[in-house]
Amino acid sequence: MTIPQLHYFSIRGYGEYIRLLFIDNAIEFKEKNFVPFSAEWGQIKDSMIFGQMPCLKIDGQELVQTGTIMRHLARKHNLNGSNEQEATFLDMFFEGVRDVRQKYFSYINDLGETRDELVNSTIPASLEKLEALFNTHPGDYIIGDKPNYADYILFEELDVYNVLDKGILVKFPALKAFHERMWNRPNLKGYLEKRAADKIWINAVEKGMN
Amino acid sequence: MTIPQLHYFSIRGYGEYIRLLFIDNAIEFKEKNFVPFSAEWGQIKDSMIFGQMPCLKIDGQELVQTGTIMRHLARKHNLNGSNEQEATFLDMFFEGVRDVRQKYFSYINDLGETRDELVNSTIPASLEKLEALFNTHPGDYIIGDKPNYADYILFEELDVYNVLDKGILVKFPALKAFHERMWNRPNLKGYLEKRAADKIWINAVEKGMN
Ligand SMILES: N[C@@H](CCC(=O)N[C@@H](CS)C(=O)NCC(=O)O)C(=O)O
Ligand SMILES: N[C@@H](CCC(=O)N[C@@H](CS)C(=O)NCC(=O)O)C(=O)O
Repeated sequence: MTIPQLHYFSIRGYGEYIRLLFIDNAIEFKEKNFVPFSAEWGQIKDSMIFGQMPCLKIDGQELVQTGTIMRHLARKHNLNGSNEQEATFLDMFFEGVRDVRQKYFSYINDLGETRDELVNSTIPASLEKLEALFNTHPGDYIIGDKPNYADYILFEELDVYNVLDKGILVKFPALKAFHERMWNRPNLKGYLEKRAADKIWINAVEKGMN
Repeated sequence: MTIPQLHYFSIRGYGEYIRLLFIDNAIEFKEKNFVPFSAEWGQIKDSMIFGQMPCLKIDGQELVQTGTIMRHLARKHNLNGSNEQEATFLDMFFEGVRDVRQKYFSYINDLGETRDELVNSTIPASLEKLEALFNTHPGDYIIGDKPNYADYILFEELDVYNVLDKGILVKFPALKAFHERMWNRPNLKGYLEKRAADKIWINAVEKGMN
């Protein structure tokens, strides 16, 4: 088995869900991270299936689309629940979190959502729904006592919103405890601390870093 | 097995991918379609897992998220390719088409994309990529000689863009032939003709209907 290679940008972005999955599960992977908007990226952009990244080269296949990559890795590495019902629940959770990211994206890229709306209305309303959904299944993670693939997007998004407002999780005890639990996972802790110390940008622009 | 019940709006929208999958495969389903922005929808909105639809009640589960529903139905009804590699390819295709829909959404909802940009630049550039991806696999459909779940979103989106510009598919012969082929599938043809005759709106607003 060759080592999978992730092509993305030198930011957290969507690629971060994939990195966290690899790191937490101690799956070896290589990375090639392009500087956003760089000439180097411009040169390979057209070679990407949809002109964008993340892209994962794995087992002779070239995969793009964040959700596709995550679901494929989930099936390959037993991070997809233990039956069809759980796999579907995780899929729904993943997609629900992506919708919140879209609103954040709209704020970051000045497409309509204001910071005030996002922090005081959109995100809390979404977290309320996610907290309720999280609580439908027992255990420390979305399903049961180990992370599945959707736990990585949930963690990353909570972490991103936490940067905008340090108190944003206080009203959502299950999500808050989950966030702390993920932070302290042995394989993640060192990586997350370094990422914070290095102030790696969340987006291709500095907006969102405070 | 109880009959699955689709809750959506009285428009094509995202729910249409699900309807087409059911109809083409002669899978019995029930529908409850709400008028967009109606008081009746307002009353049940909060009961939806993420406050939105489509929602599919199936086998005692309540599913939301279009992609989740489509992938679940794909696995259940053998519309997911015949191995992991094909399932992943279909997933990537589905997600790639959704990205184009996002641009269309931006036009319909006045969020930045203009009609001129969409019709003369964004959509043709995307169709070029989709045509190339379509041609990586032989056969009349995305993969081989029968539709899988991603074929329904591809067909519906081509059909939607075709309304904006009757000539938009001309430069993409594989997609154009695919679009015609789907139109003429025995289980779909009557439904599609009626849908056109009834001028069912594509979106919750009339924009996009010509
Ligand atoms: N739907 C795609 C979207 C991918 C995407 O938006 N990629 C951005 C970075 S997060 C990109 O490649 N931007 C650079 C460009 O478009 O040139 C996914 O989920 O992977
Ligand atoms: N990510 C969701 C988005 C669902 C969505 O946007 N639903 C819209 C209609 S297409 C809706 O329910 N709008 C009514 C509302 O938000 O009140 C999906 O793919 O299903």
